Amino acid sequence: MANQRPIGVFDSGVGGLTVVRALGERLPGEELIYLGDTARVPYGSKSAETVARYSRMSTRFLLERDVKMIVIACNTASAYALEELKAAVAVPVLGAVEPGARAAVAATRSGKIGVIGTLGTVRSGAYPRAIAEAAKAAGRAPVQVTAHPCPLLVPLAEEGWTDGAVAEAVARRYLDELAAAAPELDVLLLGCTHYPLLRGVLERVARERFGHEVKLVDSAEAMAHATFALLALHDLARMSEPVRCALRCYVTDDARIEEVGARFFGRPLGPVERVDL
Amino acid sequence: MANQRPIGVFDSGVGGLTVVRALGERLPGEELIYLGDTARVPYGSKSAETVARYSRMSTRFLLERDVKMIVIACNTASAYALEELKAAVAVPVLGAVEPGARAAVAATRSGKIGVIGTLGTVRSGAYPRAIAEAAKAAGRAPVQVTAHPCPLLVPLAEEGWTDGAVAEAVARRYLDELAAAAPELDVLLLGCTHYPLLRGVLERVARERFGHEVKLVDSAEAMAHATFALLALHDLARMSEPVRCALRCYVTDDARIEEVGARFFGRPLGPVERVDL
Repeated sequence: MANQRPIGVFDSGVGGLTVVRALGERLPGEELIYLGDTARVPYGSKSAETVARYSRMSTRFLLERDVKMIVIACNTASAYALEELKAAVAVPVLGAVEPGARAAVAATRSGKIGVIGTLGTVRSGAYPRAIAEAAKAAGRAPVQVTAHPCPLLVPLAEEGWTDGAVAEAVARRYLDELAAAAPELDVLLLGCTHYPLLRGVLERVARERFGHEVKLVDSAEAMAHATFALLALHDLARMSEPVRCALRCYVTDDARIEEVGARFFGRPLGPVERVDL
Repeated sequence: MANQRPIGVFDSGVGGLTVVRALGERLPGEELIYLGDTARVPYGSKSAETVARYSRMSTRFLLERDVKMIVIACNTASAYALEELKAAVAVPVLGAVEPGARAAVAATRSGKIGVIGTLGTVRSGAYPRAIAEAAKAAGRAPVQVTAHPCPLLVPLAEEGWTDGAVAEAVARRYLDELAAAAPELDVLLLGCTHYPLLRGVLERVARERFGHEVKLVDSAEAMAHATFALLALHDLARMSEPVRCALRCYVTDDARIEEVGARFFGRPLGPVERVDL
């Protein structure tokens, strides 16, 4: 039956495991296939063309495993490849940008939203577009969006330096730049799956640099909610008992996958298979 | 004539341009072809198998362009793939590890050398092996080598944050760890082509944390010298006037190549062609 098929999730590396974790909590009955393109990570500093090409390869890999839906857990891949993939494949495709945009619009009072992400995500302009659409759909006045690239946050999260002097210094530098550009924002959207690991230091430094409460919105949560809604819409939710082996995990390079994967997944990953795309 | 053929240089990304710069100064009469695998950078956090596979692809690309010699500008690729490539191709192949190892042995007085590099380079054990061999060849007593991985230095150099609070905090954290392990070292070998951009802050923080002068050895210089020697040995040095177009530059992804490339090359790069491997 179509509903018994797995949900396919792909990401540039391990960051998308924060999305898998949220999906597992929200949809415990579903089987998940995760593909992390760890051999070619990161996508955030690469061109639209390269990211779109790699995204097509990951999508093909998942479709060959008969998934009923594709979740693009990587913000950069969503920003550059979502529309193309939506048009090309027969199953529903969910990106990382829209769900986060809607959650940010729902959370802001001042109507001023900050977005942090990779260079690619910021350059694509995907978040300002999606936030404008979400505000319109919600019948709200136009929202002011300030997007700021933070390339060092990904290696920082992967290194596991999520607190301490270095994390503080990096967060200060980026958030000072953002505060200079948009001092009145009250929502900071974490537009990259790696950033939830730095939530603590970002929250603390944001309060200090902006001088008022800044609400952090994490797209992983929002994506799990949107996946649930999309499955319901297409009548694809699994109806049976929870599956035994809920997650099958594939990577294109397996260096440090156990250690770093567990950091993002929140617990040990289980068996991981290395594949070539 | 064989001698008129170009020298091929490959790297995981733009870091190897520090080697190209040194080669250009040392061998102004030679034509250079540079290939940066910027679509799949970085190599430093990836497995031996993946790095060796990518290195074979880059080598093939250069051989198709009829190079007379191959220089592996990437330390991680040298650590994982040099022996295999040397055995497989007909032209001389030079890696990044041996030249730096010899220069470090020549520079140490205490006989205690520190090496910093990527995770891959440190894991491979290539530097301790090469330094032991270089010490033996120089008729010196065995040298004590402490290698320490510094994954954040690459993104830091690429971001251009080569000085200031973040660079200081990162250098302090890594060099504190190194100083705890080997307080008496007097030479610090920069075992990654990105690190010369951070030379200033590393030198300053090393003096402060070790409490004595620490000599920094940069393998780019040593590689240019070794290239000169290897060309002479094989009677391959170019005999004519300096060429007009001394550098042809290829990359697998061209995002930010002008800006970041110039930072490593020390001046604008000129035309860069994007290729698929």
